[in-house]
Amino acid sequence: MEETGEPPSNRTNSNAIDDETALTQQNMEADEASVNGEADLENNFLHQPLLKRNRTLSASHLAMVGAKVSYMESLDYEINENDLFKQDWRSRSKIQVLQYVFLKWKLAFLVGLLTGLIATLINLAVENISGYKLLLVSGFLEQERFMMGLIVLTGANFLLTLSSTVLVVFFAPTAAGPGIPEIKAYLNGIDTPNMYGLPTLLVKIFGSIGAVSAGLDLGKEGPLVHIGACIASLLGQGGTEKHRVKWRWYRYMNNDRDRRDLITCGSSSGVCAAFRSPVGGVLFALEEVATWWRSALLWRTFFSTAVVVVVLRTVIEYCSSGECGLFGRGGLIMFDVSNVIVHYHLMDIIPVTLIGLIGGVLGSLYNYALHKVLRLYNLINERGKLAKILLSLTVSVFTSVCMYGLPFLVSCTECDPSLSNFDCSTTGRTGNYKRFNCPKGYYNDLASLLFSTNDDAVRNIFSTNTPGEFRPITLVIYFVLYCSAYGRLLGIAMGSYTKIDRGLYAVLGAASLMAGSMRMTVSLCVIFLELTNNLLLLPITMLVLLIAKSVGDCFNLSIYEIILDLKGLPFLDANPEPWMRNITVGELADVKPPVVSLRGVEKVSRIVDVLKNTTHNGFPVIDDHTTIPTRGNIKARELHGLILRAHLVAVLKKKWFLEQPRRTEEWEVREKFTWVELAERDLNFEQVAIEKHEMGMYVDLHPFTNKTPYTVIEDMSAAKAMVLFRQVALRHMLIVPKYQGDGIYPVIGILTRQDLRAHNIQSVFPHIARAKGREKQK
Amino acid sequence: MEETGEPPSNRTNSNAIDDETALTQQNMEADEASVNGEADLENNFLHQPLLKRNRTLSASHLAMVGAKVSYMESLDYEINENDLFKQDWRSRSKIQVLQYVFLKWKLAFLVGLLTGLIATLINLAVENISGYKLLLVSGFLEQERFMMGLIVLTGANFLLTLSSTVLVVFFAPTAAGPGIPEIKAYLNGIDTPNMYGLPTLLVKIFGSIGAVSAGLDLGKEGPLVHIGACIASLLGQGGTEKHRVKWRWYRYMNNDRDRRDLITCGSSSGVCAAFRSPVGGVLFALEEVATWWRSALLWRTFFSTAVVVVVLRTVIEYCSSGECGLFGRGGLIMFDVSNVIVHYHLMDIIPVTLIGLIGGVLGSLYNYALHKVLRLYNLINERGKLAKILLSLTVSVFTSVCMYGLPFLVSCTECDPSLSNFDCSTTGRTGNYKRFNCPKGYYNDLASLLFSTNDDAVRNIFSTNTPGEFRPITLVIYFVLYCSAYGRLLGIAMGSYTKIDRGLYAVLGAASLMAGSMRMTVSLCVIFLELTNNLLLLPITMLVLLIAKSVGDCFNLSIYEIILDLKGLPFLDANPEPWMRNITVGELADVKPPVVSLRGVEKVSRIVDVLKNTTHNGFPVIDDHTTIPTRGNIKARELHGLILRAHLVAVLKKKWFLEQPRRTEEWEVREKFTWVELAERDLNFEQVAIEKHEMGMYVDLHPFTNKTPYTVIEDMSAAKAMVLFRQVALRHMLIVPKYQGDGIYPVIGILTRQDLRAHNIQSVFPHIARAKGREKQK
Repeated sequence: MEETGEPPSNRTNSNAIDDETALTQQNMEADEASVNGEADLENNFLHQPLLKRNRTLSASHLAMVGAKVSYMESLDYEINENDLFKQDWRSRSKIQVLQYVFLKWKLAFLVGLLTGLIATLINLAVENISGYKLLLVSGFLEQERFMMGLIVLTGANFLLTLSSTVLVVFFAPTAAGPGIPEIKAYLNGIDTPNMYGLPTLLVKIFGSIGAVSAGLDLGKEGPLVHIGACIASLLGQGGTEKHRVKWRWYRYMNNDRDRRDLITCGSSSGVCAAFRSPVGGVLFALEEVATWWRSALLWRTFFSTAVVVVVLRTVIEYCSSGECGLFGRGGLIMFDVSNVIVHYHLMDIIPVTLIGLIGGVLGSLYNYALHKVLRLYNLINERGKLAKILLSLTVSVFTSVCMYGLPFLVSCTECDPSLSNFDCSTTGRTGNYKRFNCPKGYYNDLASLLFSTNDDAVRNIFSTNTPGEFRPITLVIYFVLYCSAYGRLLGIAMGSYTKIDRGLYAVLGAASLMAGSMRMTVSLCVIFLELTNNLLLLPITMLVLLIAKSVGDCFNLSIYEIILDLKGLPFLDANPEPWMRNITVGELADVKPPVVSLRGVEKVSRIVDVLKNTTHNGFPVIDDHTTIPTRGNIKARELHGLILRAHLVAVLKKKWFLEQPRRTEEWEVREKFTWVELAERDLNFEQVAIEKHEMGMYVDLHPFTNKTPYTVIEDMSAAKAMVLFRQVALRHMLIVPKYQGDGIYPVIGILTRQDLRAHNIQSVFPHIARAKGREKQK
Repeated sequence: MEETGEPPSNRTNSNAIDDETALTQQNMEADEASVNGEADLENNFLHQPLLKRNRTLSASHLAMVGAKVSYMESLDYEINENDLFKQDWRSRSKIQVLQYVFLKWKLAFLVGLLTGLIATLINLAVENISGYKLLLVSGFLEQERFMMGLIVLTGANFLLTLSSTVLVVFFAPTAAGPGIPEIKAYLNGIDTPNMYGLPTLLVKIFGSIGAVSAGLDLGKEGPLVHIGACIASLLGQGGTEKHRVKWRWYRYMNNDRDRRDLITCGSSSGVCAAFRSPVGGVLFALEEVATWWRSALLWRTFFSTAVVVVVLRTVIEYCSSGECGLFGRGGLIMFDVSNVIVHYHLMDIIPVTLIGLIGGVLGSLYNYALHKVLRLYNLINERGKLAKILLSLTVSVFTSVCMYGLPFLVSCTECDPSLSNFDCSTTGRTGNYKRFNCPKGYYNDLASLLFSTNDDAVRNIFSTNTPGEFRPITLVIYFVLYCSAYGRLLGIAMGSYTKIDRGLYAVLGAASLMAGSMRMTVSLCVIFLELTNNLLLLPITMLVLLIAKSVGDCFNLSIYEIILDLKGLPFLDANPEPWMRNITVGELADVKPPVVSLRGVEKVSRIVDVLKNTTHNGFPVIDDHTTIPTRGNIKARELHGLILRAHLVAVLKKKWFLEQPRRTEEWEVREKFTWVELAERDLNFEQVAIEKHEMGMYVDLHPFTNKTPYTVIEDMSAAKAMVLFRQVALRHMLIVPKYQGDGIYPVIGILTRQDLRAHNIQSVFPHIARAKGREKQK
């Protein structure tokens, strides 16, 4: 390190306090006491340095991916404007550019097509497997062989769960999670490894078929979003090293920007396939998932979801003639209530508000409970593979017993005389009024909800024009098990005061619960619109969602943010914390280790040293004594730019070394390197064997350096810097001094995603964090 | 200028060419010739300076607003982090912060409420005025007094048009335009004066009532969007100086950021009110209008549109009992086809593709024609107020004659026997089969389209289950007049090959035309979904929209971009032109006049001089010899930040002058200035009278300086800089040198919106522009 001559404390920040003066715990407490008086605080804020650090700003690069802890990388979303890139970009012909545009659309089409087909496959498999399973058990019930029914049901579910769990545990542990938080993180700029490989995709497909068929309390949306993202990632070649296929088109898609765009398409397609909601899918990606958004992307995403819908519709049309086994009931719209005329008047604002309030409270409670449950799961998961399998089998047996046993506890209900025997008291797979253990002409209302596939249960609880079907006690039991159905309960409680159908109350309840947990509004609203196909519901749905989200926000974070936090993914929020305005990036740089920089023409040994001894991914390239011809040949330090670790590794691998330190000509580089090679981004430095005599040689780093890194001035507040960082999707941001003069170093520090996270800053500047409470602002 | 000691040519860019060496026209042509060979180009690109300028980068600050040319300002969307702001922000109590959040929601609610009410008022007035007018004329028709009918109709339309035109011409010329382009520009960061005042709002309301009632070929969406924006602007106090009311809450909303957010809510509400499409409204603002978007804003916008829908629905419920005169037919959904079962098979992809293709071509033709017409209008408008009035009256008379006369030219059609006399051959206001001049039992199909209000005509042409109602010749005539209806024609041409209803073909045709002209996809799709309330139409609507947009994009710009261009509004596009990667901001700075900077403690005379002799709105504040205590008291130049013109004017107005040059204490400033005062942003410098002895005094600019301006390094490409500029919504961006050394000036230049517009750069660097063709990339 001495070799570089880099001054380690080139900070020019007048507010900075040296390590020696860092306050002790006692001092800080005294300070805190003085802060409590508001007037006092106001007077002191600008005069006294408020920032006292007690340790170094450090960042963990580890995150929980699936069930195990992995090393993460940030994405290089920024265009890396170095000489080689510029040359490659300029040399592309018009036809190549057209090919590139066409390729992007072709891939968006393929993502939609494949997601649609896989979603269909999953639907077909789930409906058939669980359908035939229930039919079999219904047979035993009719023969009053109740014990046999229990054994068959539990056994079948046991086997299905076992197969899914084995697949996940042994072949793709990353397929275990819900998927959406990791995708959210990826689109925010965090690359979690092994998330989008071929094994993950396959395990996710067959695993979710098994798990959903086993009647576990699982949705299809999480897996489908993950599947969509996997497909997109594989097509865009962002998969794992091992399973990467080298297509010819890879040459064009070899950057994180295009891959990320494609994964946005993939996740939208997944939502679309889960809810059969094309616009909702696009909005989901827009509202919840994507950080950086362009209208061209909006358009391409929309194209992908349109393809998904066309695929789904084609299959549904085909299956409606009964050629897909038990699959085929229901059209493209999952829960069509377009025929229900929605009447409501001003009085209905009371139950609607209530639904929203309850939904918000329940949603945040759900988030709280899930947080606890996930921590428990993690503890169990740490005990090894067997523990994982045992855990899921226990859950499976418990679910099966509940599904089968609980309906025996409620009494049978007589069928409404207006219903024919065909509609009521059914023993088949679908149907609103399940006979179960009841005599003919009677039905078991709890069995109608529990003893059916997930989709059917939802359809039944949402069903309209069935005001008396479910008794409150049934709904309470179902609610306790599945956290839903309270909308219908409220509808019953409202009784004659309301004109809204109880099925619609159930829909609103589900919407509010989702809003209370996921904290989305616009996309959920559109998804519910597309689920129900009734525009007249829209105003009350909007109201319910807005209330539920607002209430939920008062209690805790959204479910995705909680999981992101649990997994330790450094997600960068859209809005900086208000107290981040009180701290400058210069102060942040002060608490970081000194910047490690390279010279434009650098010794090989120094590069090897830097690569071995640091984990940074970008290094400023600074020339110490450049002559400026346009300024009378005066000498100055020049900030040439930023070089990526991957490019340093590439240079070492190719052994492009110079005997003497000199700047190379452009043709020399172009003979040796192509942009495509550099885009490979192979970080595996261990394989490079540098011989001893090579250590004394030189490398000209100029052609590989990104000459246009984004910079901020040292006085910039952390809040403003974070907005910039997120808005232009950066990986590194250079802090430059506000001073100009001899002996001032042109770079004060480098900020990365981790440095701008509120949580990390708080841990270094606890004083600021304590003042946070009173300045919390939406 | 000499006084500042600012070196005028502090550029350190090695590529830059001095004025003297600028190539002559001949040289440039020679160069161009050498560029034509591709291999040659590739070799030369990096070695020879490609950038040759022939004039200075200049920018016009004038734009056409309404019918006259006005001076524009950019918005200050960036948070101006100076000492006073920070102090104000820190001193806000928790309650004030809550008040602020609550205020934003309250205003979003009010915007929705008022927009909904005004939209209702307009609808009520239009339906009643034009309804009674048509009833009156129908009466004459029944009595076969055809001439009298013509006179009454033309006369009524004449008077209505006259009143609207007089209102616009004499009271609010800015109300003349469509409004949407200016709003798009505003949300992009361009403040066009007099656009959102109270007179504009009132004239827009009553003017559009008159114009639409007169049967002119006008939509309600443009005016309603403008009205929504006006309401938002007035509530957010962004109106003109004259008509500004000082509410107490103004204190909190006194920044461009909050105003702009509110105007986003307003324009969404306008779209929602026009199409009764809440989600479509939000998406319209997102896709077409807003440049900078945050998910908190998405949520608030959604709230506004929800309020609009509730208002609309309440009024419609109330009016359905017939208490609103002729208004009240039709529910919340304008063209409800939810009862139509949509069947289609693969064969239908052909007509659907055709509709998309034709829509794209027609849409771009429409844009082309409108461009020509607008230029013609501008020529006529320049001739004065009388010319404007005459022009609109001519259009009115022509429209009336067509509306009334053309139906006489087509023959009558016999009613379908399955229709009752009540449904067919109507003489009343609404109805699909207008009798007009025909005997009983017959109807005039052209009159059904022309001789009705706009809404009715649309409803008739879209009407389903009426395959034979309109004959091709009728549709051709209607198409020529109103550029619509070709979808239905195509449906007739397809005949028995298609299962899709002809009314739906008409809907698809309209959608494709709009997509071909406006180039929106997602929002239009949602708007059509909400207009028609039939989810099964969605996949084909998506397809049609995508094709139409793609085809249209091949020919010309979208209608809004064309108008923005015509008006000279410096709209900043989302994607930089590809050739902008070949030019650095340092080169841009080179062709600008030298930066005018101020010292931290500046003489009053210098400030007055700068304000008088420049039109810049921001000036860098640079201290020449600052001592850096943390660096062994070395001296250096310090870039303190950027000061706004408005703040300089405020300081001069308050006459906060110092006898001696010194830095002030914070309490001195706070005694004299509040942040609220500074936010007023009064640029009227003429009123300030500085006495002679004051000219020699000093001002401490430090407390007013934004210490954290965004900076870019001189090597940054214009493309990257533009992305940054737009993404973080800037007004000024400082260019800093990449060199560090004695005698180097810390600021190379300032970039504004105008400097980063492709068009402006092209005019200075024609060489780059010529190379553009081959590098065009989506």
